[in-house]
Amino acid sequence: MSKRKICVVVTARPSYSRIKTALQAIKDHPKLELQLVVAASALLDRYGSAVNYIVNDGFEISAKVFNVLEGENLTAAAKTTGIGILELSTVFDNLKPDMVVTIADRFETMATAIAASYMNIPLVHIQGGEVTGNIDEKVRHAITKLADYHFVASEGAKQRVLKLGEESESVFNTGCPSIDLAKNVLEKPELNFDPYQKYGGVGSSPDLSNGYIVVMQHPVTTEYADSRKHINETLQAINTISIPVLWFWPNVDAGADGTSTGIRSFREKFKPNHIHFFKNMEGEDFLRLLVNSKCLIGNSSVGIRECAYLGVPVVNIGTRQNKRERGNNILDVEYDSSAIEKAILHWLHNPKPNLSTVYGGGDAGVQIANLLAESPLRFHKTITY
Amino acid sequence: MSKRKICVVVTARPSYSRIKTALQAIKDHPKLELQLVVAASALLDRYGSAVNYIVNDGFEISAKVFNVLEGENLTAAAKTTGIGILELSTVFDNLKPDMVVTIADRFETMATAIAASYMNIPLVHIQGGEVTGNIDEKVRHAITKLADYHFVASEGAKQRVLKLGEESESVFNTGCPSIDLAKNVLEKPELNFDPYQKYGGVGSSPDLSNGYIVVMQHPVTTEYADSRKHINETLQAINTISIPVLWFWPNVDAGADGTSTGIRSFREKFKPNHIHFFKNMEGEDFLRLLVNSKCLIGNSSVGIRECAYLGVPVVNIGTRQNKRERGNNILDVEYDSSAIEKAILHWLHNPKPNLSTVYGGGDAGVQIANLLAESPLRFHKTITY
Amino acid sequence: MSKRKICVVVTARPSYSRIKTALQAIKDHPKLELQLVVAASALLDRYGSAVNYIVNDGFEISAKVFNVLEGENLTAAAKTTGIGILELSTVFDNLKPDMVVTIADRFETMATAIAASYMNIPLVHIQGGEVTGNIDEKVRHAITKLADYHFVASEGAKQRVLKLGEESESVFNTGCPSIDLAKNVLEKPELNFDPYQKYGGVGSSPDLSNGYIVVMQHPVTTEYADSRKHINETLQAINTISIPVLWFWPNVDAGADGTSTGIRSFREKFKPNHIHFFKNMEGEDFLRLLVNSKCLIGNSSVGIRECAYLGVPVVNIGTRQNKRERGNNILDVEYDSSAIEKAILHWLHNPKPNLSTVYGGGDAGVQIANLLAESPLRFHKTITY
Amino acid sequence: MSKRKICVVVTARPSYSRIKTALQAIKDHPKLELQLVVAASALLDRYGSAVNYIVNDGFEISAKVFNVLEGENLTAAAKTTGIGILELSTVFDNLKPDMVVTIADRFETMATAIAASYMNIPLVHIQGGEVTGNIDEKVRHAITKLADYHFVASEGAKQRVLKLGEESESVFNTGCPSIDLAKNVLEKPELNFDPYQKYGGVGSSPDLSNGYIVVMQHPVTTEYADSRKHINETLQAINTISIPVLWFWPNVDAGADGTSTGIRSFREKFKPNHIHFFKNMEGEDFLRLLVNSKCLIGNSSVGIRECAYLGVPVVNIGTRQNKRERGNNILDVEYDSSAIEKAILHWLHNPKPNLSTVYGGGDAGVQIANLLAESPLRFHKTITY
Repeated sequence: MSKRKICVVVTARPSYSRIKTALQAIKDHPKLELQLVVAASALLDRYGSAVNYIVNDGFEISAKVFNVLEGENLTAAAKTTGIGILELSTVFDNLKPDMVVTIADRFETMATAIAASYMNIPLVHIQGGEVTGNIDEKVRHAITKLADYHFVASEGAKQRVLKLGEESESVFNTGCPSIDLAKNVLEKPELNFDPYQKYGGVGSSPDLSNGYIVVMQHPVTTEYADSRKHINETLQAINTISIPVLWFWPNVDAGADGTSTGIRSFREKFKPNHIHFFKNMEGEDFLRLLVNSKCLIGNSSVGIRECAYLGVPVVNIGTRQNKRERGNNILDVEYDSSAIEKAILHWLHNPKPNLSTVYGGGDAGVQIANLLAESPLRFHKTITY
Repeated sequence: MSKRKICVVVTARPSYSRIKTALQAIKDHPKLELQLVVAASALLDRYGSAVNYIVNDGFEISAKVFNVLEGENLTAAAKTTGIGILELSTVFDNLKPDMVVTIADRFETMATAIAASYMNIPLVHIQGGEVTGNIDEKVRHAITKLADYHFVASEGAKQRVLKLGEESESVFNTGCPSIDLAKNVLEKPELNFDPYQKYGGVGSSPDLSNGYIVVMQHPVTTEYADSRKHINETLQAINTISIPVLWFWPNVDAGADGTSTGIRSFREKFKPNHIHFFKNMEGEDFLRLLVNSKCLIGNSSVGIRECAYLGVPVVNIGTRQNKRERGNNILDVEYDSSAIEKAILHWLHNPKPNLSTVYGGGDAGVQIANLLAESPLRFHKTITY
Repeated sequence: MSKRKICVVVTARPSYSRIKTALQAIKDHPKLELQLVVAASALLDRYGSAVNYIVNDGFEISAKVFNVLEGENLTAAAKTTGIGILELSTVFDNLKPDMVVTIADRFETMATAIAASYMNIPLVHIQGGEVTGNIDEKVRHAITKLADYHFVASEGAKQRVLKLGEESESVFNTGCPSIDLAKNVLEKPELNFDPYQKYGGVGSSPDLSNGYIVVMQHPVTTEYADSRKHINETLQAINTISIPVLWFWPNVDAGADGTSTGIRSFREKFKPNHIHFFKNMEGEDFLRLLVNSKCLIGNSSVGIRECAYLGVPVVNIGTRQNKRERGNNILDVEYDSSAIEKAILHWLHNPKPNLSTVYGGGDAGVQIANLLAESPLRFHKTITY
Repeated sequence: MSKRKICVVVTARPSYSRIKTALQAIKDHPKLELQLVVAASALLDRYGSAVNYIVNDGFEISAKVFNVLEGENLTAAAKTTGIGILELSTVFDNLKPDMVVTIADRFETMATAIAASYMNIPLVHIQGGEVTGNIDEKVRHAITKLADYHFVASEGAKQRVLKLGEESESVFNTGCPSIDLAKNVLEKPELNFDPYQKYGGVGSSPDLSNGYIVVMQHPVTTEYADSRKHINETLQAINTISIPVLWFWPNVDAGADGTSTGIRSFREKFKPNHIHFFKNMEGEDFLRLLVNSKCLIGNSSVGIRECAYLGVPVVNIGTRQNKRERGNNILDVEYDSSAIEKAILHWLHNPKPNLSTVYGGGDAGVQIANLLAESPLRFHKTITY
């Protein structure tokens, strides 16, 4: 019997980290054939070249889709999505997948959702049903309404997808595959590599043996003009703290350049000797880095999700993760340098929180592969009310 | 004070009919400036050139967007949407509207919704919240999740949009603007023009003075391969009926050519002398034609909507209008020639049904214009649960 | 040793007729692998579905590219070309051809030329160097400047390509592959099929046994507004002639609808009983039809090219074939009904002209395949002066 | 009488420098209205934001076109051109220019040429007819064949355009507008600004008062894989020279990142204290910097063109400027660090060359504006042989 062809479209480095164990489980499943499409910023050097990690992890790439239109404005995000539809529809025509999988809620994932649903290919959405309170939320719930299956990461998310009118036999709480990786890491948590040597980057290389913090802050799309101001508050707080800092550059987004420019300008002006800047890091190494850190600063979803399971303290800044379900490892602060500084100091002087399984127990990848193998192939649905 | 700029994107002839009174009310409103964009099949000769009616009705067109990619397959629908995003984002960049309005649920309306929402322009969706049970339903509810305001056409639709998690202050049951036209027509219902002379078309020109029926049947996207078979059932039923028939060609859709080919082949083979074929007709003329007909056959939403208010009997074929709220003017039948014939005979020998205001009372256009003038300009929302 | 991969992009029915024997020779060549891409109007029903003939002739299609943007204006031609580049670059990325072949001078062939040359794939141009005097000429010579090899159809064309600064080792006069088909047909010239039965079409079916004429007239792009007027002159001339007429619909082009509308309107008005209309015809059948006809009317290049070799008289209307090399089978006339009528009468009452090898001796396909197999793979060139 | 609308499309910083005085002359001409479209890398921060200089120089921008598709491969160049056609055809539809002007030979200028010529808008090409011997040559001569008017920069270029079969009344040797700027600069040649202070940049800030050299080296498209190797030879030569160096980053091109990565890696490794890196510089300031330098190193066309008129010595590396007409200010060397070093030392120890008017006498801008005002509006041409 021929295998069911599962086409997964990865459009960004964080999406790859989030889906990696599911990809492996699909690849290993006797009834499934993985068709991996790498697109958008996942292909680009200045957003961390997820494609290199994918290849190194032993996945074969079925198609590459270059669709990122350069431009420092929101129009470019719309056009990138339009080009994505043009390109992905050709890819789906060639690969003829039985199902298409799209991940989370970045703006360009809409291209995957539209191409697949318009071509009557059953569409699976990973990590719908969550709430945050920015543009991503429009995209996320719109994709839910285009998708035929929903593999969500938490009980709250499942309830929300059902309320959106999806049929109960199409919604499954698998937990988040990123927790699978976190589980692996927790089994051997020691920092078993030298971050400077393995990942290069720029800036000083402070000694990490007495503790360090990690920073990862992305621009927030709907507050485009403010992204530089936001990053400055964080930079100011970090500048006053003497503990070593490992800082990760933001992903692509309209506004990315406000954030990036702020960081570059700070570096030129203050030449800080306690901060090292990385472009990116392979997923497990990054988690291991977090497990051994004092805390994570910024607005990355890693703080909400993997850090809950890992028990890593987080200073969560601003609105980007608003309303997401969370464990007790989060201190929420506004874009305010003194609040940020105070929260960091709290975690430096208090014990780590307990771990939480709110985002899954570490077997999401296998659950997803099994569901993909067994679910009926259908692309016709109606609202339940 | 400068007027609020309202950009309405019309992509098909039926959408124009449905929004016309709102366009007029926007144009007439002292606080609003209308920016009318005509796109997709609304510009094309073989789908009825809505653009000509628009110009004749005295509206000024701010931009035309050609984005229909030819091709007899579903991929073309996806690519048409992708091209639509590329083009409309440029249009919005140029026109700088304060709000964008998109109508109903054709596949290409998603391009309007994505371009506007990604560019942080408040998006208004007309006629969300309805149910039918085909691909249109995915598009319709996805647009609801992208839109900031919802002007719906019935109480059922309003309840459904609220259940989808939209805030109650963003949802308004204005009724459908197409009922505004129906109300005008009911005030002077006489057939005051000669359809053959005014609209040309092909085929015989049977005498209409002793009654006639009207046919309008569109292909159903998700049943692409079957569209020719479906139309054949209708053609066979019509062929056995001797009363004059006025037949309207279908709109563009993947599958349109199955329907069109069926009709052409029927004409060549049977050379029927009781049928006349029209490409299209100006909205009010069409409603007047319906009021004076014995019944409407097919799957057009006009049967569900305007005909409810007009009290025109309808034989509704197949799944296209499944689950829509309806008055008591509807007889539902399957794709089956004898069932279709039987239902037609029913209406030929029974009294007309009473009119119903399920889709509004005839002031939707004015309500919509007032709401556009007074609603806060916002593009940031969150789900209510 | 692996075979050299030759990617041929066919974008229209006439291009296919013109390249068919070369495709066969490439397919049969021991050192070559044929990658056949079918694009643009060659895929579309209303332009004769060349794709069906291609499949029936036993060719395997490597990729289909839908890039025709609907719209009754010149802008659509530009956008169709832009979309073609987007799509074809993906196709070339997937197929990784060693050489790309583009045919003649239709506007959308520029997409093939740009995608290949920008991607550093050696580009072969079939039938450059000719002159006509309309927009096609800009495209044709621009492609010459992008191409690495030139397989031209006549000695005059070869001299012109050399004057354009191309290196002499890159220019070869192979003759036109369409003449290869003509040669086959001349070996068994009898009309061995019933055109009405085999190709359907619409209109009357006059008896052909006492002679008939053939009409094929395309709109001329740079005279867009005039295309309806032009076709009317021809229609008027044909209307006055009583001999049976076999009329072929025009190809897609900006302006096509002017021509088509003219023909449709004429049919409705005059209901002519000596004319039959075909959408298209398989190449060899069409040539056999011409060999047995009294003459060909219109502006098709078939008149200039195949008819020279076949000795078929031609009434060539207007500017489309201006300046092309020609045999003595051509009478040139302007867009003028009486001139057209007079020229037709001339050919009906005078003997047929001798055949001419100005466009080749019937072995172009084999010559082209051999050149593709043996020419160095290079994509870097400079002008010779 | 209404003014003739001249639409000039600028796609890159160097193109702007090259056309600036013509833009001013068009703006000032009583019979002309300037429509300035800024597109492609001219809009992007990391390629020098030509758009900022354009605004600062007082030009009003009629439309911005974002069409650069990110991707480190040649496919992205093809797709950028395809998107350019889609966008520019909309722009021309809106602006309705009487003539369109495209500049030189960058790959994306083909988008301007195709959109304008397919839409029957008279196309003017600035700086056709030159020779270099790389991909640019295909683009340049192909645009000549699409263009209706040719305003060339040298007598050799004029002769070449005529040989390409263009009519003599369409070809004018105006000289290069960049020489107009050079003429202005020569009238007041003193270095009247502090480059570090005015333009920022990174790296050391060596004292310039005892002489300095300038470096500007672009990747060569058809030698993509080698771009990093090429830049390394230059970096090695520069590293052995102790005189201050002002280095300018390359423009966007497939391969740009090979060059950029080489430079970044060199900086990290050698931390050179005699080199300052600039992203870009306003045209006149850059020329003034050159006039006061010891010599220019690299492969910029500024070396061939403006430096001829300015009498600035040049070490021209590699094939990019192959075969261009040149004054006696050029020393040509291969990609070889010792040859580069030797050539630099030659110029450091020998007198400056005399100036040359091979690329014009400094009134090109005014000549171009006058020709645009007086030339017949035509878009129909034929080859002269």
